[in-house]
Amino acid sequence: MSDFTKMDKAALQQQQQALQSELSRYEGMNLKLDMSRGKPAADQLDLSLGLFDYKDYKDETGVDARNYGQLDGLPEAKRYFAELMGVKPEETVVGNNATLQMMYQLIHIGWQFGFEGGKGPWKDEQSPKFLCPVPGYDRHFRVTEVFGFELVMVPMTPDGPDMDILEELAKDPAVKGVWCVPVYSNPDGYVYSEQTVHRLAKMGTGAPDFKIIWDNAYGFHHLTDTKYTVPNLLDACREAGNEDRPVMLCSTSKVTFAGGGVAALAASASVVKQYVKYLSIMLISPDKVNQLHHTRFLKQVGMDAHMKKQAAIIRPKFEKVIDILHKNLDGTGIARWTEPKGGYFISLFVPQGCAARTVELCKQAGVVMTPAGAAYPYGIDPKDEHIRIAPTFPPIEELETAAELLCIAVRLAAVEKLLQN
Amino acid sequence: MSDFTKMDKAALQQQQQALQSELSRYEGMNLKLDMSRGKPAADQLDLSLGLFDYKDYKDETGVDARNYGQLDGLPEAKRYFAELMGVKPEETVVGNNATLQMMYQLIHIGWQFGFEGGKGPWKDEQSPKFLCPVPGYDRHFRVTEVFGFELVMVPMTPDGPDMDILEELAKDPAVKGVWCVPVYSNPDGYVYSEQTVHRLAKMGTGAPDFKIIWDNAYGFHHLTDTKYTVPNLLDACREAGNEDRPVMLCSTSKVTFAGGGVAALAASASVVKQYVKYLSIMLISPDKVNQLHHTRFLKQVGMDAHMKKQAAIIRPKFEKVIDILHKNLDGTGIARWTEPKGGYFISLFVPQGCAARTVELCKQAGVVMTPAGAAYPYGIDPKDEHIRIAPTFPPIEELETAAELLCIAVRLAAVEKLLQN
Repeated sequence: MSDFTKMDKAALQQQQQALQSELSRYEGMNLKLDMSRGKPAADQLDLSLGLFDYKDYKDETGVDARNYGQLDGLPEAKRYFAELMGVKPEETVVGNNATLQMMYQLIHIGWQFGFEGGKGPWKDEQSPKFLCPVPGYDRHFRVTEVFGFELVMVPMTPDGPDMDILEELAKDPAVKGVWCVPVYSNPDGYVYSEQTVHRLAKMGTGAPDFKIIWDNAYGFHHLTDTKYTVPNLLDACREAGNEDRPVMLCSTSKVTFAGGGVAALAASASVVKQYVKYLSIMLISPDKVNQLHHTRFLKQVGMDAHMKKQAAIIRPKFEKVIDILHKNLDGTGIARWTEPKGGYFISLFVPQGCAARTVELCKQAGVVMTPAGAAYPYGIDPKDEHIRIAPTFPPIEELETAAELLCIAVRLAAVEKLLQN
Repeated sequence: MSDFTKMDKAALQQQQQALQSELSRYEGMNLKLDMSRGKPAADQLDLSLGLFDYKDYKDETGVDARNYGQLDGLPEAKRYFAELMGVKPEETVVGNNATLQMMYQLIHIGWQFGFEGGKGPWKDEQSPKFLCPVPGYDRHFRVTEVFGFELVMVPMTPDGPDMDILEELAKDPAVKGVWCVPVYSNPDGYVYSEQTVHRLAKMGTGAPDFKIIWDNAYGFHHLTDTKYTVPNLLDACREAGNEDRPVMLCSTSKVTFAGGGVAALAASASVVKQYVKYLSIMLISPDKVNQLHHTRFLKQVGMDAHMKKQAAIIRPKFEKVIDILHKNLDGTGIARWTEPKGGYFISLFVPQGCAARTVELCKQAGVVMTPAGAAYPYGIDPKDEHIRIAPTFPPIEELETAAELLCIAVRLAAVEKLLQN
């Protein structure tokens, strides 16, 4: 395909006309397509239909999962999730269905009550700040936004957040922590490098109670036969003398049922104790029946084997989108994208100032994309260049149409921009 | 039995010796009994073993319960719980497993962000207060304690909180709300009168955003064939022009599985909207799979029929304890107790200054009771006279022994006290 950035005005105008007419053709089709939703498709959900087949409610330690108690999780589930996260059971809390809620509670504890080792509640800080690698996960940023933190952007690289910048920012005592999705990051699909992990563990921080929220949401979600992983952050932090710094999270929401899974957290025994102390104010026990169902089911089917079945459904969708991006945008000089080896998203970068327009053009033609800017604090992408693609939910034929249409929108928005210049 | 309060010193000393020797006999038995836990027994839990038999995950509106979405609850579950609570579906939120967490979030919203119609976040009030009918539920009081509210006691009567006192206290703009368990109250087992409900709905409050937290935890938990109920508080408040005042809650924790149930909330559409707005920061969706399992199961077995089976298991335990109290304490002049027609608890009142000692004597002899004072703010019963009895969990033979022993402890503690005077 020709390089748009090298076309003269006449050629651009010709392109514009052709692209507008292509788009009109789609508009006439009354499409209702959606590439915005990071959720599993129905056939993925069907993989876990055996979840409730197990009918004995005593766990391996004799605890009746159907009754109150075990605020930090069913012992059998704690042992299972601890192993998944590479920590000890006493460094684990197994909860209800949402890591997001666990993360909210962590921020709430720091903000209102303060963590041990800190200088008091974060709310007492003049203007507390939180680091947000961008593009990142809007739900993370929003939690800290609601509590009134200033959200400070740190650019992402294929090795994780730009550590030179992050280390500098972390020296500020008002900076209380950082949001991280270390494996198949949302939305880029990057995997943090070993060096990034060790620098995060070792770096000096102005706030003694600095927290790394390590949301390993896609740790099991490999698309290829290579299982990309990162070093155990709790171990790395402990070695560096900062064992109370990390809180690691994982969830089965995209392993079994989305919103009907089990969330777990890992941290030093001291941080776990602080978390559980405040958890005890709001909860008598988590849903241990669901914990037992999940633990028994995942042990039986095997996490690896189960996630290979998930990958077999998802991988063709990622490949389809990436093929279409190549076919339509290679050589145009107006787009680049990530090609993740796992996770749920693809990042597409268009010329500066073109992301919102691209999403708008898609919408006009019947394709819903994640709002431009969603992956940035306050929903504002300063360069207006990033678009998040979520390929998992639509059937592959719909995805194909939507991706073709997206490429037309990208090209048209870019042409419009080039004509303005 | 003779009236202890009319005995002379010699008779009391004789009693003391006899009771000490009775207690020693129990101490020799190495008992490990527990009347402290308000949780169902295993045979109650077995009543809900059919919960997971239903295998279709589309609800009546076509929503796939296994995927993200429907933050305010699965439509079919909303319709079912709305009906149970006598409200419209749009006045309902169906959540995860814990009303306590919903109530915590409500207090958190008021405290940090403020409710509409109020004068801003409650945290900005010089010294915010919350009303606590006593004896009451320690977990309620603790939520408001953690947020720094001053906990103001209101005495309970068989008709609910003493409304003359409550109405006076509610005039203070610093008073932001009241905790209520309107049906089979924890721990007395009282049912609020119609008049109490209407006075709560109509009363003037200093705080325009005053909230009644209406925790109807035992609304389905009848022990007799009479289903005691209260007027619909939302209706009553709406009639009085105070529709944003109440938040009503119910849960299936003691209907199906304790901690593995479904919690629901009802309030005006406006309060629901405010709640869901903040819920959206911390949650993508509740566990709708569990909601669907519960809705289908309860529709199938019928709530009334199911709760009659629960009552058939629990009622003999309540009767046994109350029989033993009568047999051992009638006419002694040192104890009175409630005889609930539903719920999970019995309140036992001993002479002032004797509750902690009674619980201590029980413990020495191998019976764990709820700590004296637990039903009061800050865990302090100003008269040290109240003991909460939880008869549901132990097998009936153990319960019998524990109750007999409790009566000896009550008598011995009273004799000790009378001898001091």
